Amino acid sequence: MAKEKKLVEAITSMEEDFAQWYTDVVKKAELIAYSSVKGCMIIKPAGYAIWENIQKSLDAKFKETGVENLYMPLFIPESLLQREKDHVEGFAPEVAWVTYGGLNELQERLCVRPTSETLFCDFYANEVQSYRDLPKVYNQWCSVVRWEKETRPFLRSREFLWQEGHTVHATEEEAIERTEQMLNLYADFLEQELAIPVIRGRKTDKEKFAGAEATYTIESLMHDGKALQSGTSHNFGDGFAKAFGIQYTDRENKLQYAHQTSWGMTTRVIGAIIMVHGDNSGLVLPPRIAPIQAAIIPIQQNKEGVLDKAYELKVLLEKSFQVKVDDSDKSPGWKFSEQEMRGIPVRIELGPKDIEANQCVMVRRDNREKIVVSLDEIQSKLAEVLETMQQDMFERAKKHRDEHTYEAKSYEEFQDTIANKPGFVKAMWCGDVACEDKIKEETTATSRCIPFVQEHIGDTCVCCGRPAKSMVYWGKAY
Amino acid sequence: MAKEKKLVEAITSMEEDFAQWYTDVVKKAELIAYSSVKGCMIIKPAGYAIWENIQKSLDAKFKETGVENLYMPLFIPESLLQREKDHVEGFAPEVAWVTYGGLNELQERLCVRPTSETLFCDFYANEVQSYRDLPKVYNQWCSVVRWEKETRPFLRSREFLWQEGHTVHATEEEAIERTEQMLNLYADFLEQELAIPVIRGRKTDKEKFAGAEATYTIESLMHDGKALQSGTSHNFGDGFAKAFGIQYTDRENKLQYAHQTSWGMTTRVIGAIIMVHGDNSGLVLPPRIAPIQAAIIPIQQNKEGVLDKAYELKVLLEKSFQVKVDDSDKSPGWKFSEQEMRGIPVRIELGPKDIEANQCVMVRRDNREKIVVSLDEIQSKLAEVLETMQQDMFERAKKHRDEHTYEAKSYEEFQDTIANKPGFVKAMWCGDVACEDKIKEETTATSRCIPFVQEHIGDTCVCCGRPAKSMVYWGKAY
Repeated sequence: MAKEKKLVEAITSMEEDFAQWYTDVVKKAELIAYSSVKGCMIIKPAGYAIWENIQKSLDAKFKETGVENLYMPLFIPESLLQREKDHVEGFAPEVAWVTYGGLNELQERLCVRPTSETLFCDFYANEVQSYRDLPKVYNQWCSVVRWEKETRPFLRSREFLWQEGHTVHATEEEAIERTEQMLNLYADFLEQELAIPVIRGRKTDKEKFAGAEATYTIESLMHDGKALQSGTSHNFGDGFAKAFGIQYTDRENKLQYAHQTSWGMTTRVIGAIIMVHGDNSGLVLPPRIAPIQAAIIPIQQNKEGVLDKAYELKVLLEKSFQVKVDDSDKSPGWKFSEQEMRGIPVRIELGPKDIEANQCVMVRRDNREKIVVSLDEIQSKLAEVLETMQQDMFERAKKHRDEHTYEAKSYEEFQDTIANKPGFVKAMWCGDVACEDKIKEETTATSRCIPFVQEHIGDTCVCCGRPAKSMVYWGKAY
Repeated sequence: MAKEKKLVEAITSMEEDFAQWYTDVVKKAELIAYSSVKGCMIIKPAGYAIWENIQKSLDAKFKETGVENLYMPLFIPESLLQREKDHVEGFAPEVAWVTYGGLNELQERLCVRPTSETLFCDFYANEVQSYRDLPKVYNQWCSVVRWEKETRPFLRSREFLWQEGHTVHATEEEAIERTEQMLNLYADFLEQELAIPVIRGRKTDKEKFAGAEATYTIESLMHDGKALQSGTSHNFGDGFAKAFGIQYTDRENKLQYAHQTSWGMTTRVIGAIIMVHGDNSGLVLPPRIAPIQAAIIPIQQNKEGVLDKAYELKVLLEKSFQVKVDDSDKSPGWKFSEQEMRGIPVRIELGPKDIEANQCVMVRRDNREKIVVSLDEIQSKLAEVLETMQQDMFERAKKHRDEHTYEAKSYEEFQDTIANKPGFVKAMWCGDVACEDKIKEETTATSRCIPFVQEHIGDTCVCCGRPAKSMVYWGKAY
């Protein structure tokens, strides 16, 4: 019996069930497959190609700021993980433990890295001796493991891919500067490459990274009004340096503790791309990060000259763009749907009549606008369409975010907004964790960040009425 | 008390103690650092940059042949690893086992992937339905873990980086073709990019990969006369497909088992670069893979105009080459040694007198040849010097390999050569594993490969005297 591939199937609409829409899209756009390891996903070629583009772009930006890549071991001895108190409390409950090597039980358990601060600190304690050795600005691209109970593709999985930068500096100022520099690099990357607008700010003490003095974050808003933490940068001060003995002799020959930072971005941002830009026909990829930017779809491809012309255009276009020709034996309508599902930014329709008229039809994935283009101008026009689409996607996402950002001046208003209007709520806060706890318990919203750009919404804490210290973005989050 | 960095220290000479020379070089060229995890190394920026160049080059070559990258989970459930009998027997004794996730004992142990055939097979069993789904030519770049007892940086470590390609095809012919194609790709890569000559051939049944029908290998010869397996490509036939149920309907609508291959290259090749090209001053990097191809060293850099000129040349040269200026406050002699240790192919000396004469001095790392070059021709001359050096390095390595390749017609001659002349020994073999076992036991040499290019050395097996089936390369190996 034949096992034919099933037709492209409709996906659940996002209005009906956003979570199911998301799951449908990641599967039908062939971004992931489930594996036999619970909570771990297979990132299929269409998904991994997006990650490769993210890597390539981010890695070049990192290197411009002096970052060097290296590779640290996958395993951390239990005693090393325990060296910094806050850090081990934050991570120990969710790590995977290796207890056997071959047939022998290990003398000391090894955890599979959930993050590598402890390994880097141990390394820096040996490497850093003098002010001449500083700064060290190192990064690695790797996978990490956190034993999550509830998992969702890209958003929360037991293993995920990321980059983790770990730096060590002579002074506090330099460490703070690097922490901010990397946060801004992430923010610009999301806004310019992924067309995702972000709020830049600082996490509250409750939400900061285990062991950090300050955690900076970029927060983005998904189509369903939930927030997603999309990148973080931590300033460790000299806390880890003291726990691990990272000291250097300064120019006056005095021993000093070093200052450190770490910063990371993960495959989670692929989830953000899906949930910010996707629609009921599937994925919509921002042109700058799309592995295939345009797909040429021949119409009546069996007619003489059609496929030849399609290949000719491909050769011309691939000098500047990532282009493919879909010359499979499927119908054009089927090809349109498939490519919409995969989020390819532009499709180029080309049939016998087009060729006769020396033209083609470009169709934008995001708004389905059709543009008739002379074949003589196809290169410059494609560049223009891709660029316009990239900008439009950013503006559309920003408009959506702004329209779903509210202010609350009283606790009643706050509760009502959180309950009924998905999105960010801006409200004043006294700085007390008790209010954060209360808000989380009563509304399920968490503090997303204390934005760098503060607004004055009132003088008192939205929760307790005491004098306010900062304006905070609140929201339900992934 | 000041903790100043120690002076560049002399390394053990390779004639005195090759193993110690190797260890000294990997440490003093700052390729690796030892970690607190026994048997796992830290690949430092200078080492990782070599791997990045290898990745970039190989990955582009892969993609030209239609390879797509993806990412599979780090863990393999024990039951999945056990699905193919030979495979589990080969790997189970040397895997690391995860038994706890957070505070809970796992219901089923997970091994940290030693290689991912089982995961790919499980995946392909779901993905492959029809002949239309074939071939699938997938690859991943990742780390793998094998719980080795004796470890050495790059050559054998408990965790190492590699790429593993896994393909599935409709026919046996296609699978064989892909197996050969990838082996030749590896061989060309080593010869052309790494300047390492290789022998291409097939492993004997005793030495082939656990579960493979045939393993192809490239074997290279290190400076000490030991062999290093430098890349392998396996044809699985339909063995794994039968164990995992990977079936497709063919054009006649009949169910068929698929045919598979896998192929890999690891950070081990960095060990090969060191041991083929290195000398008693440290590393010597082939120009095509060197992260820094030329270092400009200003002489009397405090004299007016010297540093400016150095920076000016850097800007000019970095259009085509990877170049750095060493403007640190160390002495020129010290800089020369440091850069020789790191294997930078060309150093460019530039002092006030050179500038006055509109010239610089290029010094090749491999043979220390000094070439006075007019600054007007610096670009073309550097290209020429790097290219010549790349060719010379290959020729020198090939000459060394050929001079250390012997023939043995009798067992006595064989034993004597293996005992006294480090290198490859070519000898005839009957095809019986008993002879291989005997040779290994009595001489510690193993069969390296049955080369594709066969030579006739005699009619009888060098070990047992029965009729010979093939000519085999034998040697002591890493």
